[in-house]
Amino acid sequence: MSQRSQVRVRKYGGSSLATTGHIERVAEQISQVCADGLSAVVVVSAMGATTDQLVAMVSEITDHPSGREYDALLSTGEIVSSALLSMALHKRGVEALSLSGAQAGIKTTAMFRDARIENIDIRKLLERLPDRGCLIIAGFQGVNENQDTTTLGRGGSDTTAVALAAALNADTCEIFTDVAGVYTSDPRICPLARPLLDISYDEMLEMATTGAGVLHPRAVEVGQDYDVTIHVRSTIDPESAGTLIRKEALMEKERKARAVTHQLKVAKITLRGLEDQPGIAAKLFEPLSDAGVSVDTIVQNASVEGKTDLTFTVTPNLLEEAVEAVKVAQTTLGIAEVITNPDLGTVSVVGSGMTNSPGYAARMFRTLTDSDVNIDMISTSDIRITCVVRSEDVEKSVVALNAAFDLGID
Amino acid sequence: MSQRSQVRVRKYGGSSLATTGHIERVAEQISQVCADGLSAVVVVSAMGATTDQLVAMVSEITDHPSGREYDALLSTGEIVSSALLSMALHKRGVEALSLSGAQAGIKTTAMFRDARIENIDIRKLLERLPDRGCLIIAGFQGVNENQDTTTLGRGGSDTTAVALAAALNADTCEIFTDVAGVYTSDPRICPLARPLLDISYDEMLEMATTGAGVLHPRAVEVGQDYDVTIHVRSTIDPESAGTLIRKEALMEKERKARAVTHQLKVAKITLRGLEDQPGIAAKLFEPLSDAGVSVDTIVQNASVEGKTDLTFTVTPNLLEEAVEAVKVAQTTLGIAEVITNPDLGTVSVVGSGMTNSPGYAARMFRTLTDSDVNIDMISTSDIRITCVVRSEDVEKSVVALNAAFDLGID
Repeated sequence: MSQRSQVRVRKYGGSSLATTGHIERVAEQISQVCADGLSAVVVVSAMGATTDQLVAMVSEITDHPSGREYDALLSTGEIVSSALLSMALHKRGVEALSLSGAQAGIKTTAMFRDARIENIDIRKLLERLPDRGCLIIAGFQGVNENQDTTTLGRGGSDTTAVALAAALNADTCEIFTDVAGVYTSDPRICPLARPLLDISYDEMLEMATTGAGVLHPRAVEVGQDYDVTIHVRSTIDPESAGTLIRKEALMEKERKARAVTHQLKVAKITLRGLEDQPGIAAKLFEPLSDAGVSVDTIVQNASVEGKTDLTFTVTPNLLEEAVEAVKVAQTTLGIAEVITNPDLGTVSVVGSGMTNSPGYAARMFRTLTDSDVNIDMISTSDIRITCVVRSEDVEKSVVALNAAFDLGID
Repeated sequence: MSQRSQVRVRKYGGSSLATTGHIERVAEQISQVCADGLSAVVVVSAMGATTDQLVAMVSEITDHPSGREYDALLSTGEIVSSALLSMALHKRGVEALSLSGAQAGIKTTAMFRDARIENIDIRKLLERLPDRGCLIIAGFQGVNENQDTTTLGRGGSDTTAVALAAALNADTCEIFTDVAGVYTSDPRICPLARPLLDISYDEMLEMATTGAGVLHPRAVEVGQDYDVTIHVRSTIDPESAGTLIRKEALMEKERKARAVTHQLKVAKITLRGLEDQPGIAAKLFEPLSDAGVSVDTIVQNASVEGKTDLTFTVTPNLLEEAVEAVKVAQTTLGIAEVITNPDLGTVSVVGSGMTNSPGYAARMFRTLTDSDVNIDMISTSDIRITCVVRSEDVEKSVVALNAAFDLGID
């Protein structure tokens, strides 16, 4: 095994830093780490609603902000929280230093609003890390090669934290949030949902991409790539176990379905009478990608007389852009008709034990049918089954599936 | 004459950028400059009350914030306004780029909260300046040699703007504010006060250090050192003439008293029974300087039997620190008694024509006496007479002096 560093790496989310009172509580928790003789690298999000307030000001000015200016603006939220947290640590006698993404040497790709971390200059960071003290790093941000500020997309602070843990060769990255861990399903919808003690990277990735908001999918990928255990913990109740996300789930092996995730709102676009010719999918999805539209579930029907139907889902706020992009290519692709439905949602059952076990799919469909839920589309991966259903049916589907797969509190 | 650059350099203050609506108006004004075929370098302050809100959060956490963290925090306000203004310019088809102090290459001394600009990397700036477009620079900030963010002290955006004009070899720096220029006295107190068409650097310096809030004294010094004319103009009424601050006042030469300035609140400290020995002033004021207390008017009485009294004024919020610093040195200096009075203010008459004209002092004292204002202390420079009076007498003193020196609207 490689040598692992003794630096604690943790991240606090925006709801854990909502007010100066919250910041004081977080400072108290960090000061305990330093009192134990350890150093800490702490990544912070912006305080509570700060980012939303900044975005609201932008929308008062323009619907099409430049990515560069947008990132320069949004990055200030994390600088504010990092400086305030550092002050609250000083008050407790802890040596602390706040660093912006640029100051922390977090180099990213050039893509504004959705940059990827390319490199972190750890030597510079370690030089500034005080013994038994901490560095407070503004999450969600970095700089491109022009020294322009970039951001990593919403939830990007998770990625900052796990990438720092990887670069510092720490074995664990703690993600502190306002819930007790990763739940079997959203406890706001399903009161019987319970926190998972552990879950694999692959399962967590499927969950994160199908609606589990607790962790950013790219953070999970970085954890997987660098073998960093991600420990999701509660800021409010730090004594509770939380959830370990790691190479393989050691506990609860017998449970094959691990969680039910959902998206309350997705929009569906159906293209009818498409010429079924080679390369048509590329011709269709390239303009969508150029328009910045990320496509989720894609279903293509079997070809009948050289014609086929193709259906895919997008987030509802991108429906208009998606339809525009499709219509530009309508003649080229020989699309007869474009049909949209904005009032759909998804429910997914995730679990690595589901591989090669068709019984899970059957049980999912039976459960939904018994709950009078109509299934609009189905897509699957090795460890996930997703059903597209009507928006209004999402909540009852989650509750029913949580029970059917025995994922509730015992 | 040296060759002067064709770049327009201007600064907009916080009240001119208070809301996104204000930012739109400023963008409209700048777009006119670019429509005229010029490029612009625009320095911005933080929006309206932003800085006060950040300071309020600090005071919820600590009374003694680290200067480094304080500056990191406060610098975000100007980054926000620069990014939003840049977006508002894009909307009008103007090429614009926002830059933080660090990105603009503004290098400062290491002193947090009150750093001095040492150097600006103009080559890098000019490389990024779009033709007929503009750079929007976050004012009030820079970086020290550790790449830590520093701030220039309140009002520092003025200094940023004038320093940029000097570095870019521009002949004028426009300071846009919410008043019509530099007034003969504060129009909120004296409705008959009128804007000055021009005034010399020396006069403006005396005014700025004795209470005229419209311009930061260091900005005036930089303007003087690099022969940059500072043009104070109204954002609300950009057609009005404003005030030119330059080497010598060309207009209104015959008027020797130019303005009346005031400070509503100063505190006085009197040290009685001081040993009158060489070097005693240094011994006294060094500990004050070390405690960060800036001393204004100083008056020392003639020595009687080897003892003297020494009186000086400080801003009221520093009174406590000042008294503590003095008491530490009390025995060494042989101070018999320390007396304080926190309820004083100042009125000053400023004008370069006053040199060697004792008649001005006499007229000032007579005017105050006729207004039943008791004069507590007097200090003078070549071009200024300052009287320390009771706080409650400041406003009527300003009105009376404005009239006595014929500084009102004709």
